[in-house]
Amino acid sequence: MNGNRFGRLFQVTTYGESHGPGMGVVVSGVPAGLDLSAADVQHELDRRKPGQSTMTTSRDEPDAVTIESGLQDGVTTGTPIGMTIQNRDAQSEKYEPFVTAPRPSHGDFTYSAKFGTRNWGGGGRSSARETANWVAAGAIATKVLASQGIEIAAHVNQIDDIRAPPVDFEQIEAHTDDNEVRCAHPETAERMRERVEEYQREGDSIGGSVYFEARGVPRGLGAPRFESVEARLGQGMMAIPASTAFEFGLGREAREYTGSERNDEWGFDDAGDPTPVENDHGGVQGGITTGEPIYGEVTLHAPTSIPKEQETVDWETGEPKTVQVTGRHDPVLPPRAVPVVESVLALTLVDFMLLSGRINPDRLDGQVGEYDTDYHPENPRRNE
Amino acid sequence: MNGNRFGRLFQVTTYGESHGPGMGVVVSGVPAGLDLSAADVQHELDRRKPGQSTMTTSRDEPDAVTIESGLQDGVTTGTPIGMTIQNRDAQSEKYEPFVTAPRPSHGDFTYSAKFGTRNWGGGGRSSARETANWVAAGAIATKVLASQGIEIAAHVNQIDDIRAPPVDFEQIEAHTDDNEVRCAHPETAERMRERVEEYQREGDSIGGSVYFEARGVPRGLGAPRFESVEARLGQGMMAIPASTAFEFGLGREAREYTGSERNDEWGFDDAGDPTPVENDHGGVQGGITTGEPIYGEVTLHAPTSIPKEQETVDWETGEPKTVQVTGRHDPVLPPRAVPVVESVLALTLVDFMLLSGRINPDRLDGQVGEYDTDYHPENPRRNE
Amino acid sequence: MNGNRFGRLFQVTTYGESHGPGMGVVVSGVPAGLDLSAADVQHELDRRKPGQSTMTTSRDEPDAVTIESGLQDGVTTGTPIGMTIQNRDAQSEKYEPFVTAPRPSHGDFTYSAKFGTRNWGGGGRSSARETANWVAAGAIATKVLASQGIEIAAHVNQIDDIRAPPVDFEQIEAHTDDNEVRCAHPETAERMRERVEEYQREGDSIGGSVYFEARGVPRGLGAPRFESVEARLGQGMMAIPASTAFEFGLGREAREYTGSERNDEWGFDDAGDPTPVENDHGGVQGGITTGEPIYGEVTLHAPTSIPKEQETVDWETGEPKTVQVTGRHDPVLPPRAVPVVESVLALTLVDFMLLSGRINPDRLDGQVGEYDTDYHPENPRRNE
Amino acid sequence: MNGNRFGRLFQVTTYGESHGPGMGVVVSGVPAGLDLSAADVQHELDRRKPGQSTMTTSRDEPDAVTIESGLQDGVTTGTPIGMTIQNRDAQSEKYEPFVTAPRPSHGDFTYSAKFGTRNWGGGGRSSARETANWVAAGAIATKVLASQGIEIAAHVNQIDDIRAPPVDFEQIEAHTDDNEVRCAHPETAERMRERVEEYQREGDSIGGSVYFEARGVPRGLGAPRFESVEARLGQGMMAIPASTAFEFGLGREAREYTGSERNDEWGFDDAGDPTPVENDHGGVQGGITTGEPIYGEVTLHAPTSIPKEQETVDWETGEPKTVQVTGRHDPVLPPRAVPVVESVLALTLVDFMLLSGRINPDRLDGQVGEYDTDYHPENPRRNE
Repeated sequence: MNGNRFGRLFQVTTYGESHGPGMGVVVSGVPAGLDLSAADVQHELDRRKPGQSTMTTSRDEPDAVTIESGLQDGVTTGTPIGMTIQNRDAQSEKYEPFVTAPRPSHGDFTYSAKFGTRNWGGGGRSSARETANWVAAGAIATKVLASQGIEIAAHVNQIDDIRAPPVDFEQIEAHTDDNEVRCAHPETAERMRERVEEYQREGDSIGGSVYFEARGVPRGLGAPRFESVEARLGQGMMAIPASTAFEFGLGREAREYTGSERNDEWGFDDAGDPTPVENDHGGVQGGITTGEPIYGEVTLHAPTSIPKEQETVDWETGEPKTVQVTGRHDPVLPPRAVPVVESVLALTLVDFMLLSGRINPDRLDGQVGEYDTDYHPENPRRNE
Repeated sequence: MNGNRFGRLFQVTTYGESHGPGMGVVVSGVPAGLDLSAADVQHELDRRKPGQSTMTTSRDEPDAVTIESGLQDGVTTGTPIGMTIQNRDAQSEKYEPFVTAPRPSHGDFTYSAKFGTRNWGGGGRSSARETANWVAAGAIATKVLASQGIEIAAHVNQIDDIRAPPVDFEQIEAHTDDNEVRCAHPETAERMRERVEEYQREGDSIGGSVYFEARGVPRGLGAPRFESVEARLGQGMMAIPASTAFEFGLGREAREYTGSERNDEWGFDDAGDPTPVENDHGGVQGGITTGEPIYGEVTLHAPTSIPKEQETVDWETGEPKTVQVTGRHDPVLPPRAVPVVESVLALTLVDFMLLSGRINPDRLDGQVGEYDTDYHPENPRRNE
Repeated sequence: MNGNRFGRLFQVTTYGESHGPGMGVVVSGVPAGLDLSAADVQHELDRRKPGQSTMTTSRDEPDAVTIESGLQDGVTTGTPIGMTIQNRDAQSEKYEPFVTAPRPSHGDFTYSAKFGTRNWGGGGRSSARETANWVAAGAIATKVLASQGIEIAAHVNQIDDIRAPPVDFEQIEAHTDDNEVRCAHPETAERMRERVEEYQREGDSIGGSVYFEARGVPRGLGAPRFESVEARLGQGMMAIPASTAFEFGLGREAREYTGSERNDEWGFDDAGDPTPVENDHGGVQGGITTGEPIYGEVTLHAPTSIPKEQETVDWETGEPKTVQVTGRHDPVLPPRAVPVVESVLALTLVDFMLLSGRINPDRLDGQVGEYDTDYHPENPRRNE
Repeated sequence: MNGNRFGRLFQVTTYGESHGPGMGVVVSGVPAGLDLSAADVQHELDRRKPGQSTMTTSRDEPDAVTIESGLQDGVTTGTPIGMTIQNRDAQSEKYEPFVTAPRPSHGDFTYSAKFGTRNWGGGGRSSARETANWVAAGAIATKVLASQGIEIAAHVNQIDDIRAPPVDFEQIEAHTDDNEVRCAHPETAERMRERVEEYQREGDSIGGSVYFEARGVPRGLGAPRFESVEARLGQGMMAIPASTAFEFGLGREAREYTGSERNDEWGFDDAGDPTPVENDHGGVQGGITTGEPIYGEVTLHAPTSIPKEQETVDWETGEPKTVQVTGRHDPVLPPRAVPVVESVLALTLVDFMLLSGRINPDRLDGQVGEYDTDYHPENPRRNE
């Protein structure tokens, strides 16, 4: 399996290389009746695209998306949505030195070892550029979730050893994009920016992490065991290029908590339904949601493309070789990874909403055929 | 699930409507090392495209395909191949009368009943036009199979009550495209052509069938039970628009055969391996191939779009309505369905070849990295 | 893939050989809140089990099922239901002659060619005995469907060239089990019985077919393309051991129908909804249901195990060999296949019901927690 | 989807509740030709089973496994292997207080919220007891991997704030089971044991973690993107009950590493193939293996079942309620989780081996039919 698919009922299928003619994504399972335009998707792509700041590669890519199918008069029809993005500013010649001399900690060698060949320009299929497809699909998922009252947000909560204090969800939603580091805590953002620039000056790069949170997730979503909410998030978040750790709820810190400290006791909410009085469990128990916020963190290692000289070998010549990766690269990944993490979260949650039959079509903003609204008042979904 | 996916390791994912901006298909699992160009795919698309003859719709569509990804220097890399086809000659206005007044035996009503809306131009997602995606994917599958010594052919063996006599595989391979009916038996083809024209003059249409056969399929391919060769072919062939029957081997006639008549006894082939002395079993026993040719038939009902007046109802007005389907339509489906049937057969068999690890990379014609050929002499596949 | 799985949300997974210690099936996706007992399942198993009549193998197997999981106080919980059936009356020694000398048209050779070995007693995994698992799962699917107003029935409509006239659904439901041939038309059943006995006396066997029908299926069920109702039925029905043809609606006869003959015009039903005035389309258009009955036929070839002498070869000795299959075998398959065909139909339809979110939990007969009924009045399913 | 399935070609399907009649697992995709006995599986189950020490629940369960299918003369046949485990020592009455009063941080409420009912004895489906199925399947995966030269080991590397120093792989393999804490560093193990006993005396519990490592994994295994090695491990490890963090390679610490520190430069191995000179990348680059050891950590929170008094609510009475979980429970999870973590690692890697066609049947220890060895000398697998 090529690893280009994600989701069970909300199905994402991607293609494309960093320097190929184009990239694209097919999204199946989008409920019918959602207002959708290319602008909705473009807005999220613009948050991920290169050339945004001194902190991102200067590659000049508009990442302009076209919606090829799945709409009627600007409303989704429930059939597959095909989206395409053309590549513009490829400069493959810069990668020729690495065709048979793998860059340290890149996929150059492993792709060739697996497939016997590879598209080598710009890292080909292994390029993080391909996550543009994820963000395009995630934008649709996010819009579906928003129509159902589910909100998603993420921000950069650590770079190197600089860690942001806890920040309210509303603050994250409102201010993540205020600065180029995408940290919703301004003072910390400024310190992070300075730290990144130091490494950048040294021709080096640095790691960091992204905190994510979802609110308004209904109770009873998810599944036991291998399809638990955290298991599906674990797959998706670890699939993000450069991801080295996924933490859910208390995450790694749970090692040092006792049962009595971590256990969340039960009370009643205003509606008289059981609700946990605290949320150390991250909104999921037994793999299924409690209705409390879902949260966690993803660690992203330092970009492997650095101007510093590094040693490698050339498998053609059989000789050692010193290389410098002088392409256009980010000095730190979390700022541009924020929309990618949000997309994985949105894709995972909308998939569970479909599996639970919880999408309420009356809350989708699009207008569907008069006929239908007469016909299935009771039918909760039109998306399978 | 949207029904836009086929295959387990050789994975096809499609999108697109008859009158939308464009259609496309993503093919995952193509082995690395296959020479592939758009021309290879275009050749098969041209066999399916409209406007070929008096017997096909006059819609003017070049069906020009672009390969967006998955290649390096004209050789497959083992990563997903994205292909796109733009729509050109859409004339949606002709379909306005049917927006809320479903054409008889079309998907107009059922799509609206399921999704609450639909892309109605040209039949939208339900249009047979979408099978262009299948043929594009099938062209790649066919090329992979050919490299492994597996040949595929199909022709029209019945229209109305005119049935072709049995025809040799070589004859089918060589002569199916000699006439516009795509029947490899010339005399029968001529009679079929006349019969179709009679119905066409009456503003009517007629049904028929396609015979398919595969040669060179290795023994031991397939799986028991739900993944048997005939089960997977059954899904794929019945998914073809207008398909009403799938017959495998003796097919329906097996009802009137005794065990002693139908059973195929065993002998030895030249290599001293067991081989059936006859092939009433269609090349598969217990769901797994014997090495004998795989063959069967697919029935396609008459095109439902006919100029004759027909009665329907308008669910908006609540009134009956008389309609004429005056679009550009085929009077009979099998001639253009031949490449679609071949594609389903090829997609199914290449999938089993991958599942069996039977693809021999040394027989793929493309040149892969020198490194690899040194590195995995024993590695049977580069395609997972 | 081993071919032991069927279904997308209503997931069946089977194991077991004809002469192994035991067989079993895991059923996932069963909605919570269904009253279920082993007796419900046993009733259907008894219709398939051997030793029912002179027309079935005399192997003495109670096929007693145990439900191992998925219940609380006799009501389904929505978690996987594991069922086990122990084998009792295995007589493997009768199969020793065939270990390296394959029986004609059996899976003996193909299993060994694929796997390099096989469980050879009683045909091992390729034995039709394994369909007991399908029937056990189908019994649950049928009960879920019945709670939603969907009825399923099948009967033997042809053996050799003896074909039953059309029979009403109610007649099929009520009288299929009245005779050992399982033909709901008594006079035809008697002629079929005599014909089968003739072949049996000659040490031979004969083919036939099963007609199936489903009523009460809601509109808008199914999916386009590869997941169409007929495509999924095509996979399931062709997976039945000895199945050589699947016909849907008019089936093979559609070859000789014109568009104007076959097209089903639209009218209004009593509720004022569009409904086809005829049903040549078999209840499905564009892969999605119209609300009309779903019907079709499955052809089953003659049993390959016959007492008559047959020629084969021994791959160990390299010599030809004359064999007689003197085990206990059925002279004709359709009578015992009726519950298997019904099970495949039920499993396919319940899967589409889940995918459409159409299961109404209030119609399930079991009692679920008071808490829940207060909690999700709007939630249509508890089964994902 | 019920969350009871794991794996793509090596497919595991489970059923069973803590207090139901029995549990079981079906394993598909096991290569033919492996010597396998119940004893092989029992050995691993005994490492996970309760009642091993003062540090594990005193529930008396032999967890005796029966292999129901998939063997011929003690050798796997390539067909599904069904295994069953009967429950013996269920004491459901102890759980009656919690039927409508959920235990803090258990799945009691969420299962009822999702399914509307649940099997409540012993936690039902949400009980960690169900991981016995995973270990049974993992035992087969581990044996297949061992035949191919792939070794797996895990041990407890942290409890509370007590962290073991790095330990050699050989030490882990040889000494993990030497003590009841399953920490391969004896001095640390002793400190951990004392710490756990302190919490146990207080009626409390504590968290910890498990370190895992795999050696001998060939290069070029895995896939890009959503099917990367770390993504699949992320799903599997996060699916383990009580898992709150998955770290791969440097894991969370990568946040504070620069690119130049973390990047692994390339050299040549003795065979002249490129190999990383360090392994901060954890054996995977671009989702695909480099041939270096695969390693990481899983965090498990403290057991939620504690004798201390806790507050909850009863949704029937609408009243608060004080509960004590006086069942038989572990004070810490990692010691018994070690075989579970090893199983997830083995199941994930064997699945990739199958997908890569890398299983060498000649290295499987079982004897397969003489015929086959003559027949497919070139066929690399018999397992699809």
